Amino acid sequence: MRHHDRIRAVEWSDAGLKLLDQRLLPRLEQWVLLRDAKGVAEAIRDMVVRGAPAIGVTAAYGVVLAARDRYAESPQHWKNAIEEDFRVLAESRPTAVNLFWALERMKTQLAGIDGDPAPALLNEARRIHEADIAANYRMGELGAALIDTPGAVLTHCNTGSLATGGFGTALGVIRAAYGTGRVDHVFASETRPWLQGARLTAWELVEDNIPVTLITEGAAATLMKQGKVNWVIVGADRIAANGDVANKIGTYSLAVAARHHGVKFMVVAPTTTVDMNITSGADIPIEERAEDEVLTLGGTRLAPPAAHAWNPSFDVTPAALIDAIVTEKGVVAAPTLEKMQAMMAA
Amino acid sequence: MRHHDRIRAVEWSDAGLKLLDQRLLPRLEQWVLLRDAKGVAEAIRDMVVRGAPAIGVTAAYGVVLAARDRYAESPQHWKNAIEEDFRVLAESRPTAVNLFWALERMKTQLAGIDGDPAPALLNEARRIHEADIAANYRMGELGAALIDTPGAVLTHCNTGSLATGGFGTALGVIRAAYGTGRVDHVFASETRPWLQGARLTAWELVEDNIPVTLITEGAAATLMKQGKVNWVIVGADRIAANGDVANKIGTYSLAVAARHHGVKFMVVAPTTTVDMNITSGADIPIEERAEDEVLTLGGTRLAPPAAHAWNPSFDVTPAALIDAIVTEKGVVAAPTLEKMQAMMAA
Repeated sequence: MRHHDRIRAVEWSDAGLKLLDQRLLPRLEQWVLLRDAKGVAEAIRDMVVRGAPAIGVTAAYGVVLAARDRYAESPQHWKNAIEEDFRVLAESRPTAVNLFWALERMKTQLAGIDGDPAPALLNEARRIHEADIAANYRMGELGAALIDTPGAVLTHCNTGSLATGGFGTALGVIRAAYGTGRVDHVFASETRPWLQGARLTAWELVEDNIPVTLITEGAAATLMKQGKVNWVIVGADRIAANGDVANKIGTYSLAVAARHHGVKFMVVAPTTTVDMNITSGADIPIEERAEDEVLTLGGTRLAPPAAHAWNPSFDVTPAALIDAIVTEKGVVAAPTLEKMQAMMAA
Repeated sequence: MRHHDRIRAVEWSDAGLKLLDQRLLPRLEQWVLLRDAKGVAEAIRDMVVRGAPAIGVTAAYGVVLAARDRYAESPQHWKNAIEEDFRVLAESRPTAVNLFWALERMKTQLAGIDGDPAPALLNEARRIHEADIAANYRMGELGAALIDTPGAVLTHCNTGSLATGGFGTALGVIRAAYGTGRVDHVFASETRPWLQGARLTAWELVEDNIPVTLITEGAAATLMKQGKVNWVIVGADRIAANGDVANKIGTYSLAVAARHHGVKFMVVAPTTTVDMNITSGADIPIEERAEDEVLTLGGTRLAPPAAHAWNPSFDVTPAALIDAIVTEKGVVAAPTLEKMQAMMAA
């Protein structure tokens, strides 16, 4: 069994929702057990779990916990009381649209429930979870097929089993392409400040025995200049109707460098990451996190005490710099509004 | 007295050469006392001192220590024996040409010495040191004059008092421009993996009360896209005859992004950093340092045990992406071989 078949960032159990604490990886594999929606919202905010699809799956299970509690409190009024839980979950992080999509879907399911809501909602959360994994496998096939010249690729942040229901978006494509010989080596940017590349992507790839070399983000342009990678393959936290992509800070810089060097740029994300209600990337809310994520590391201060930092968590890559957006519904080459609409309608 | 007037990375004393240990800043201000050339070479290699001009000044003082020892051993044969010290110093780091320039200049001085070489060589090292500081002040004026729209600038790595004889190259321009109101805010990239920006540049600017905001390198392109900076101002470790510039890894990425966004790009370095014997950047030797600089931080492993990293210390920015090279001899706009030759001959 490959590592990615066993690793799950999010796992339901009778005791509650179990999240693999991604703040501690790769040093420690430690699970956090969450028993209520407030705890789930905090875990999302504090990045116990991260990655747009994984956040969506987590929020869905969070609604199950909320419904269980609210129904126990009052079988009559639980549908009113749970509104507060939806609000708390929705406020956990602003950029990944999968969160709002999952909450909306759970809310729709909830509306038709009579009696104990837990079984039906748990089924719905599990369907969301399983559909995400299935979408990843499908995107893996579609994305891998785009890589015509076998060689190395560059990825950013973590988009693997840890960031999704399982398998991965960009990392799913890389896994699939490695399996068919279209990718022979992975360069992973360490991804400051949270080091998702160094801590999580390197961990997943090492466990899968896929050759991985970490680089600092400053080395990416030189890697491209030296012809060492054919593709940059990344995930997304929200995709606007015109194909603009919000993703982990540093993505846009890679897209600019890729275009400058004639390196292809692929974005891999399920349709649950696409927000057709948003016209362009300019309207995507970009989370800015605490400056301490930049100024300190593992509790150690890096910068002098009086220094400050600007810490946007995401950036926007315009559609014009993207060669292909891959969803489970198909590939959108050189994305435009019309092509995105056609793909979503497929 | 401003901080930059008192801070010196390299200081001669009767006991030997004192280096401010830049590996420990900003947490500790600790000096290392070096009494022989071998120790100086090790300190350069291990980055107790870094920054091309500071490395040159340090190596010059290293030759003084070597001459003192070799002359004490044998007043007859010291000029032969010291060849070994020149070799050890020259092998400390490969990219910064200031190192080789300073050694060459000390060797020329040494050739004409009869009797105890220490006084004459110490004078020469001090002249090199003082000339570097004077060049920095001159570059500060010339570079600041290029900034026509007052606003914020972005800098990379550390190019201040710590990287030079004193005052700084790119940071000297920024200091001068802040003094005349042409710069009102500095964004400093943290500069992975060694964090010269977070640890050293932020420290120097905080001490000088110049407003500084740290960013990860991944955020630089977004900073430019949002119109927050008018100029990127960096130093250099070696400049080829055609104006190609080797500088800290990540510089090239910033140059590509700057051109994409119409942000101006300035390189500031004394003529001791110019290597007219090298035709283009392709011929500049680029140091690759140990992968542990990327994989660990402060002794803590960031990546999983089996992961590897690629750690080039420098990259090459082609002249075509540079708006101005500023030396103490003048400004070379849109550098070419002919313009570089004219500047060097001035």
